[in-house]
Amino acid sequence: MARHDGRKNDQLRPFKMKRRFTKQADGSILVQAGGTTVLCTASVEAKVPRWLEGEGKGWITAEYSMLPGSTSPRKNRKTDGRSTEIQRLIGRSLRAVADLEALGERAITVDCDVLEANGGTRTASITGAFVALVEAIRTIDLPDPKKYPLRDSVAAVSVGVVDGRVLLDLDYTEDFAAAVDMNVVMTGSGQFVEVQGTGEETTFSEKELTALLKSARKGIAELTAIQSKTLGRQWPF
Amino acid sequence: MARHDGRKNDQLRPFKMKRRFTKQADGSILVQAGGTTVLCTASVEAKVPRWLEGEGKGWITAEYSMLPGSTSPRKNRKTDGRSTEIQRLIGRSLRAVADLEALGERAITVDCDVLEANGGTRTASITGAFVALVEAIRTIDLPDPKKYPLRDSVAAVSVGVVDGRVLLDLDYTEDFAAAVDMNVVMTGSGQFVEVQGTGEETTFSEKELTALLKSARKGIAELTAIQSKTLGRQWPF
Amino acid sequence: MARHDGRKNDQLRPFKMKRRFTKQADGSILVQAGGTTVLCTASVEAKVPRWLEGEGKGWITAEYSMLPGSTSPRKNRKTDGRSTEIQRLIGRSLRAVADLEALGERAITVDCDVLEANGGTRTASITGAFVALVEAIRTIDLPDPKKYPLRDSVAAVSVGVVDGRVLLDLDYTEDFAAAVDMNVVMTGSGQFVEVQGTGEETTFSEKELTALLKSARKGIAELTAIQSKTLGRQWPF
Amino acid sequence: MARHDGRKNDQLRPFKMKRRFTKQADGSILVQAGGTTVLCTASVEAKVPRWLEGEGKGWITAEYSMLPGSTSPRKNRKTDGRSTEIQRLIGRSLRAVADLEALGERAITVDCDVLEANGGTRTASITGAFVALVEAIRTIDLPDPKKYPLRDSVAAVSVGVVDGRVLLDLDYTEDFAAAVDMNVVMTGSGQFVEVQGTGEETTFSEKELTALLKSARKGIAELTAIQSKTLGRQWPF
Amino acid sequence: MARHDGRKNDQLRPFKMKRRFTKQADGSILVQAGGTTVLCTASVEAKVPRWLEGEGKGWITAEYSMLPGSTSPRKNRKTDGRSTEIQRLIGRSLRAVADLEALGERAITVDCDVLEANGGTRTASITGAFVALVEAIRTIDLPDPKKYPLRDSVAAVSVGVVDGRVLLDLDYTEDFAAAVDMNVVMTGSGQFVEVQGTGEETTFSEKELTALLKSARKGIAELTAIQSKTLGRQWPF
Amino acid sequence: MARHDGRKNDQLRPFKMKRRFTKQADGSILVQAGGTTVLCTASVEAKVPRWLEGEGKGWITAEYSMLPGSTSPRKNRKTDGRSTEIQRLIGRSLRAVADLEALGERAITVDCDVLEANGGTRTASITGAFVALVEAIRTIDLPDPKKYPLRDSVAAVSVGVVDGRVLLDLDYTEDFAAAVDMNVVMTGSGQFVEVQGTGEETTFSEKELTALLKSARKGIAELTAIQSKTLGRQWPF
Repeated sequence: MARHDGRKNDQLRPFKMKRRFTKQADGSILVQAGGTTVLCTASVEAKVPRWLEGEGKGWITAEYSMLPGSTSPRKNRKTDGRSTEIQRLIGRSLRAVADLEALGERAITVDCDVLEANGGTRTASITGAFVALVEAIRTIDLPDPKKYPLRDSVAAVSVGVVDGRVLLDLDYTEDFAAAVDMNVVMTGSGQFVEVQGTGEETTFSEKELTALLKSARKGIAELTAIQSKTLGRQWPF
Repeated sequence: MARHDGRKNDQLRPFKMKRRFTKQADGSILVQAGGTTVLCTASVEAKVPRWLEGEGKGWITAEYSMLPGSTSPRKNRKTDGRSTEIQRLIGRSLRAVADLEALGERAITVDCDVLEANGGTRTASITGAFVALVEAIRTIDLPDPKKYPLRDSVAAVSVGVVDGRVLLDLDYTEDFAAAVDMNVVMTGSGQFVEVQGTGEETTFSEKELTALLKSARKGIAELTAIQSKTLGRQWPF
Repeated sequence: MARHDGRKNDQLRPFKMKRRFTKQADGSILVQAGGTTVLCTASVEAKVPRWLEGEGKGWITAEYSMLPGSTSPRKNRKTDGRSTEIQRLIGRSLRAVADLEALGERAITVDCDVLEANGGTRTASITGAFVALVEAIRTIDLPDPKKYPLRDSVAAVSVGVVDGRVLLDLDYTEDFAAAVDMNVVMTGSGQFVEVQGTGEETTFSEKELTALLKSARKGIAELTAIQSKTLGRQWPF
Repeated sequence: MARHDGRKNDQLRPFKMKRRFTKQADGSILVQAGGTTVLCTASVEAKVPRWLEGEGKGWITAEYSMLPGSTSPRKNRKTDGRSTEIQRLIGRSLRAVADLEALGERAITVDCDVLEANGGTRTASITGAFVALVEAIRTIDLPDPKKYPLRDSVAAVSVGVVDGRVLLDLDYTEDFAAAVDMNVVMTGSGQFVEVQGTGEETTFSEKELTALLKSARKGIAELTAIQSKTLGRQWPF
Repeated sequence: MARHDGRKNDQLRPFKMKRRFTKQADGSILVQAGGTTVLCTASVEAKVPRWLEGEGKGWITAEYSMLPGSTSPRKNRKTDGRSTEIQRLIGRSLRAVADLEALGERAITVDCDVLEANGGTRTASITGAFVALVEAIRTIDLPDPKKYPLRDSVAAVSVGVVDGRVLLDLDYTEDFAAAVDMNVVMTGSGQFVEVQGTGEETTFSEKELTALLKSARKGIAELTAIQSKTLGRQWPF
Repeated sequence: MARHDGRKNDQLRPFKMKRRFTKQADGSILVQAGGTTVLCTASVEAKVPRWLEGEGKGWITAEYSMLPGSTSPRKNRKTDGRSTEIQRLIGRSLRAVADLEALGERAITVDCDVLEANGGTRTASITGAFVALVEAIRTIDLPDPKKYPLRDSVAAVSVGVVDGRVLLDLDYTEDFAAAVDMNVVMTGSGQFVEVQGTGEETTFSEKELTALLKSARKGIAELTAIQSKTLGRQWPF
């Protein structure tokens, strides 16, 4: 049985990345995953947060927000608990593959602004944020040219159980119907960064967990390939 | 003497409008005026603000925000006095050409989110917001098909005095150097909607005022033509 | 046809200024324009905002607020978009005639608190704020006695189109009925500082604009004379 | 030994009340107690807070705020703990002499805005608020003309121990030097409404407490006489 | 090699539950997991949030907060992103085992206030919240006595990788040193509710994931037994 | 006639203090006064607020909050005017017996978190806060061992007039019914620190005031004895 948009169970939505979509920020990527569009911009600042001053290390953080017109009906323009949770996840995911000492004392903020939401905005944000981060790093004079500040690439995808089937890369309709919803963040070399699985008003078995992780691994491998192609470079070196 | 980007004194920046840039909102226009990019989305809601309930009229309002990565250095993600002032201006400009009774009891919110800022974000927002508004109205079952809710089109442009010259459509560099900065909002039929002229830490004469208004009028006429072409329709009928 | 309070079209409301109405602030003026009463106090502080430190310049800013009991029905005690917009306008108007270097590294804050509102609170605030500012400057040891920090005086008045007539200095009833509402800020020597004209849910022609500016110019000249008399001094020297 | 301004220990500062200082609010009194000036306005609203709806009773509440220019150096324009505490005190004091059922289902808000602060702002506020409240009640159609909504008058004064002496009606200098600071709210008939005595970084004995209360009683009697004269009416009938 | 407090790798900290620790709330449990102490209170309200009105269903939600004195150094008393994230997790975990229709139109709020924090506050909160919830449900007249509103019990525990070893129920010291940190929420019948694994500035392999889940399963089984004993009842029936 | 819980008019509720109830804070006391339970923790910080820097003095402050589950119905988790007022009272009460210079440049914050509220939460907080403060001071290396930072002990109790009788230590039911409500803060040596008497929607006579103070004095003496016993030490030395 095909999915409502004709995809196979383990098939990603069409995934596109447009580099330098805007010019002001140091890195800027427009990510499109099916009907979900996220603008990821990375801005470098020559100083770190106060609590990190004098440590000889850099910092990477993220902010996530949905534009009011990104959903129908329109969404209010204020930060809620969900946004906070997502931006903490994006920041952790990027730092997990970073060597903050190699960055020098500077901070990079990656802003993920959702222009259009149709499911999977947080995973599209992570996948795009990594590419914007690489672009921003290219504009930096690194303290030690031999130490690159990123040890691996990172990408994310959602998986879920819908009507008893394990599906890859849920759109909004599928996400709404899912009994289990899981977001998986992995590196290009296949290590886990984050696993967040939630029974939506229900629970799930160990067997389902295993099937979900397998599907996610397949999706991440494909996203990693797209990232590498966009950047003309592959992790880990 | 040519301007720093080669334009003549009374020449607009390249101005583009992309319809249906996003799909969730009822109207969605991506406006590009030189290096300034604004996403204008219009969302219809089947109810009006509380203070207008039962009046048999609709409401049109606007919100304006700059994405953090739209400027360099990065801008903080909080509403300041300037944003509030601009979104009030956009809302007034749209309502000035609207027949709110012809709209029926519904509210339209136009969100203008600046993706990239290089001067003239508020005027690009107004010019784009009008087009997004028309698109959103197309999705509505109007109470009386013979009464269209917009009496005229509306567009806006900035003019200023830089080094003694009157310039049309200032970019960020020119805006920063301007002794006088004026935003003019006009209808397609050449009436004024708003005139906001400010001596930036200086003052200006009546003669300068006259020259500024003349240049603005020329720019508005060109923008009106682009709006009409984008929409395939011209105001006033 | 006379106005509802018997005034001629180009006649100001009775305008009074009481110096030293309160004693704590460095400058303090109670302004009464018909039924509108504003207390303008100017406070000097021996330091500038952080972003201006070390520049050898001073700063002038303003805050505007309406007391809850200044209107009927009572107004809530929170800053809204309108207040923010007005206090930005007052600050810009004062700085347009100021020589901030002549002030030395100090900040002057002018607070305009509306005790009673009956139209024209923002223009009465600007006209009074200038006088409170002069008073406050009198308490300062200027860095260079030969360089006075104000190049010109500044005053403001509203004009509007009501029932097809151009009226000067609108009270609340007239403001409510106005098709066009314009606030004009000018210097004592007749230069423009700000022109803010708004079609209230309508539009206006170039001819109307010209008539409005002419009426405003007459009103400003009279207000400038009252300022000069109150201060015993006239700008520009 | 005389006080620094020549007063005797049990002497009030010159105390003046100006009725109808502003016109918009239903009641409006300008109170001056020496160098302290407070504008008290009372506004009637034809509905009660939600939690009181349908009880057939009215409500009286108060708000207290200091204008930024009321002190030197200038005070920031935000509500702090002290303001909240004072406005709760004013509200309780007014309600203590009120018959809320006789008021009918309406709310009266008394705003006490300090224009100039030189000690005793909260007690001047209470004394003025009562008079503004009476004025506002005069504008109301009472449910039962035989039941007047105020059972007694209410006034307040500060007393303190400074250099071992019990002083009445402290100004700012005395308040700053006081070892004990007490605010007493009493009715025209000599009953207590509130007694708030504080050892400022110190403590006080029962004997001091007795002397303080005696001095306060004398001051309240004089303030009650001024209130009665201002209103042309005396409590309790 | 023993852990720093002498525990074995897969050993829980001493875990105690005190029923009816406070009396005002409908359910009240004091949970102690080693040096972590959480007070969980459940309060029933006879109405549901607005968006659920008229659906014939109930609602269960949670709030989480740390007292300022629960940590050393003292923690500020404001809700941060972390608290928001945790209270959303607690709420979801409780709802995953609930039959909201069997609850009738009422809301239960479970407050988890951390009195003392030494690692594992969110998992202790979930484990205690479930027991407080059961106690609160005992005070309710259920719409249908045959349909009990909880289908299963729920408990939570943390696991992590520290110095290459998989440890159960991390205290603060271990949590700080952990390379991988995972919170697992499971039902009494052994189904997953949530799995949240995070590489703290690092990543983890599939093998580690498997070992972590196995250890968590053992801990949850023990916590479920303590819950059952505390309540004198076992899930699922 | 006995009180509703069998107490005599001048009898305290059972009063218990549990030392070291939690371990993270420098001082930690669980206070129980009948059905009221407050956790008082004192945290020492090696720096003072900015406005006190370089003065060679310490600072003592307090925060007060009620847990949502401490009342029935549940209370919202936000700071209101009442909380602000109470925490200011607790702070002043502690500082009244303190020698801030003897403390050295450090700040102690005492948090009073109400776990269970049944009347008298602010007085139980003060009485417990003093003991937590002493405990925290024991952890400090004082600048001069001969100068102890506390000159006296401090405790508090409520008294009130209920049905014409003067009652000591009101519980919630009595507090609700009280015509007069008074909180008295006194030192171990019998000096007043604060007296706050309020006619709750009514007034009170001098005779009632005298009787209330006498009853409070008796209660404070008993509370002081319990404090001394808990601490194994008596004030003043």
